[in-house]
Amino acid sequence: MTTHQEAVRGAERSRTRDDDRYVFHSWSAQGAIDPLPVAGGEGAWFWDEDGNRYLDFASQLVNLNLGHQHPRLVAALQAQAGRLATVGPTFANDVRGELARLITERAPGARTGGTPAGGAGDDRRWRVFFTNGGADAVENAVRLARLHTGRAKVLAAYRSYHGNTTTAMSLTGDPRRWPNEVSPDPHVRHFLGPYAYRSAFGARDDAEEGERALAHLREVVQLEGPGTIAAILLETIVGTNGVLIPPDGYLAGVRALCDEHGILLVTDEVMVGFGRVGEWFAVDRWGVVPDLVTFAKGVNSGYVPLGGVIIGEHVARTFDDRVFPGGLTYSGHPLACAVGVETVRTFEDERILERVRTLGADVIGPRLREIAARHPSVGEVRGLGFFWAVELVRDRETREPLVPFNASGPAAAPMGAVVAAIKERGVWPFVHFNRLHVAPPLVTSADDLEHGIAAIDAALDVADEQAEAARE
Amino acid sequence: MTTHQEAVRGAERSRTRDDDRYVFHSWSAQGAIDPLPVAGGEGAWFWDEDGNRYLDFASQLVNLNLGHQHPRLVAALQAQAGRLATVGPTFANDVRGELARLITERAPGARTGGTPAGGAGDDRRWRVFFTNGGADAVENAVRLARLHTGRAKVLAAYRSYHGNTTTAMSLTGDPRRWPNEVSPDPHVRHFLGPYAYRSAFGARDDAEEGERALAHLREVVQLEGPGTIAAILLETIVGTNGVLIPPDGYLAGVRALCDEHGILLVTDEVMVGFGRVGEWFAVDRWGVVPDLVTFAKGVNSGYVPLGGVIIGEHVARTFDDRVFPGGLTYSGHPLACAVGVETVRTFEDERILERVRTLGADVIGPRLREIAARHPSVGEVRGLGFFWAVELVRDRETREPLVPFNASGPAAAPMGAVVAAIKERGVWPFVHFNRLHVAPPLVTSADDLEHGIAAIDAALDVADEQAEAARE
Repeated sequence: MTTHQEAVRGAERSRTRDDDRYVFHSWSAQGAIDPLPVAGGEGAWFWDEDGNRYLDFASQLVNLNLGHQHPRLVAALQAQAGRLATVGPTFANDVRGELARLITERAPGARTGGTPAGGAGDDRRWRVFFTNGGADAVENAVRLARLHTGRAKVLAAYRSYHGNTTTAMSLTGDPRRWPNEVSPDPHVRHFLGPYAYRSAFGARDDAEEGERALAHLREVVQLEGPGTIAAILLETIVGTNGVLIPPDGYLAGVRALCDEHGILLVTDEVMVGFGRVGEWFAVDRWGVVPDLVTFAKGVNSGYVPLGGVIIGEHVARTFDDRVFPGGLTYSGHPLACAVGVETVRTFEDERILERVRTLGADVIGPRLREIAARHPSVGEVRGLGFFWAVELVRDRETREPLVPFNASGPAAAPMGAVVAAIKERGVWPFVHFNRLHVAPPLVTSADDLEHGIAAIDAALDVADEQAEAARE
Repeated sequence: MTTHQEAVRGAERSRTRDDDRYVFHSWSAQGAIDPLPVAGGEGAWFWDEDGNRYLDFASQLVNLNLGHQHPRLVAALQAQAGRLATVGPTFANDVRGELARLITERAPGARTGGTPAGGAGDDRRWRVFFTNGGADAVENAVRLARLHTGRAKVLAAYRSYHGNTTTAMSLTGDPRRWPNEVSPDPHVRHFLGPYAYRSAFGARDDAEEGERALAHLREVVQLEGPGTIAAILLETIVGTNGVLIPPDGYLAGVRALCDEHGILLVTDEVMVGFGRVGEWFAVDRWGVVPDLVTFAKGVNSGYVPLGGVIIGEHVARTFDDRVFPGGLTYSGHPLACAVGVETVRTFEDERILERVRTLGADVIGPRLREIAARHPSVGEVRGLGFFWAVELVRDRETREPLVPFNASGPAAAPMGAVVAAIKERGVWPFVHFNRLHVAPPLVTSADDLEHGIAAIDAALDVADEQAEAARE
């Protein structure tokens, strides 16, 4: 057995060297990386080819909402593979239709009533256009908004990420856009969203930040020309750029601003949709109904690439008689949709939304806040459900970040030391700039949550030292 | 049993109604379509929910190169699903590495020798960046070219399709671009490629068309400014826009023109790569080595969404010390790559390239030409391997197309009648403007090829009638 296992291990190692030699990796200087070779996973855990186990506090790229190798998702995937792996988007397909229905039934406002836009005899409020991931979901949402309104301009937030293709990247409000501005989408403008901890508006609290950010957006709309704006696009809760939760009233204010000017509201729920904050969609928390919703990641935990746009019926009807000029070879892929259907069922059978709300409120939040109190390097802890940020600072008074905005190389070293200390403890964190994000699979046990947070706690000793050294 | 089967059938029907109600379909006026509900498939055949069987002469969207439900691909997919369904792109993974190596070993020029760009001790000539499909492959190829050269402009051909996202759509040279020009990539320009049957250059034959198209491109490069051009992008063989095979010498001429000015040559092999014309990559037929190659579809028959860019080592090395600013959550998806690995092995075990060449040359080509001789509505038959176009005309002398360019509604009715006649015979064709394309799975038996072509033969009686009626 050992010999056989060693041979298998040897073959795996060699194939991993292939990754090193022949795979061109994303967001990297190719010579500067040494990617961990992942061999397997189960639930909230994964392991490398040497058998080192890590608790996945990043859900990979915040997509693995039901964890690694969930037996029900794997079974649904294998069953659909044996039944019908793929079919072109020009055909109809049962699982694609079923997932579309399941999503529309859970879309914002679908359960709270209101008047369907479809008119008499048509109770549809939403339809779904499927894509391969988040970027093309955003591209198609913008296409829908532009053609529905006949306007070109789209407003998006600074401190945002919307994807890798030209329009999605132009909409992005973080430094990943900068090297990609060689030839951008010409009709994108950016505004500042609410960020109370680092208010650009001099606000003293969340409520004031929300009001002022809304006034700022109203001003931008006025000065850009309301009649030129097709859509306002925002991450319902800003993800990678900070787990920024909109103050109560902000989203409702944006909705009202859009209504006033015939602008569509597009909420990007790629990262926060499908349970990340204990709701099907994060906007549900504020009872706001957008015109278009983009999704990906959590819809099927990324077991098969899938994204899409949930389209308000009033927008969809624009294309009842007029050709929608967009499409992809793999739109509504049956394999991806089958895992999506099983995801929705599993969410309900395992009461995932409830556990996210409960464990977020009872375990993650309180434990992180308790830690924050003990570590002077923690500036703020904020979050909801299974989506939290720990913002690290050199100095709590000045709130100077532990590392500068967009730091790399030596300037980023203090965060590198913190990350290394967490990984040493067998926990895999999500890190961005001066923040640790806590975004574990939604199936992570309370014990594992405690274990991961304890590792962060221990590693924050390093952050405290780094902060102290920086102050000196 | 019958009762159970009926219940199952009933449930499937209801789910298909979900497709009709809740799925927003690509490239369509939603009220004008009635998509066929596909229930299953095997090899070159698929069937609908009523059990009607169709011979797939379109390979769905020219992606199903190894046919429906190939047992080896299904088994590889199911095995990988049980092993590790997904992993983030920041990690290494064995099947991803293996597929990258298998692709680089089969990339253009890899087997014919030449000097590797990597220098002493490094025999790498190519690396692979994986994406979710063809559109984001093109987006990333353009990103690589622009950053490598420091230039913004990209030249692409009229009569081309490159994908659905903003830059890929801006590069597209067919009417699908028109409604999407609300906010295009500003640094794209178009040129005319060779199309001997409808020469824009007054050429009398293929050779002259190639020379004149090349002179035209040279002129466009000169007048756009060679130093402003990052890349020339072209479909090696134009796909949906006509199965346009470049005359011998054309691609070599474009390669030389690029070399002269430090412009990168990007060949889009999304539709023709992985065996469609009996080569791993269509450029192999002309011995031309591009700098970047985009692929998707045939790489794993679309069983799991997958695309990518094969990157010449000289371009890849630009990003050894410099961050490549692109990425996707599902880049190098293990499930997709596992089916890719099994695809390469199956191609070799089943000698797919050889059978495509042989059956293309011995069956498809000769039979289509024989038909053409008997039907006055056939203007030209052209193709290679398993990729052919039958161009229908009102009049052979004037070459006036059977339906006008980009026709829809009543103007397109003559083609609609032809298509209906083919489908009545249980064959599913690929149709574009005034052309029937023959693009069956590469595993289609000789008998099935004969069967499908016989259906086209019979349906061309309808085309002849339509052409005659149009002439009167």
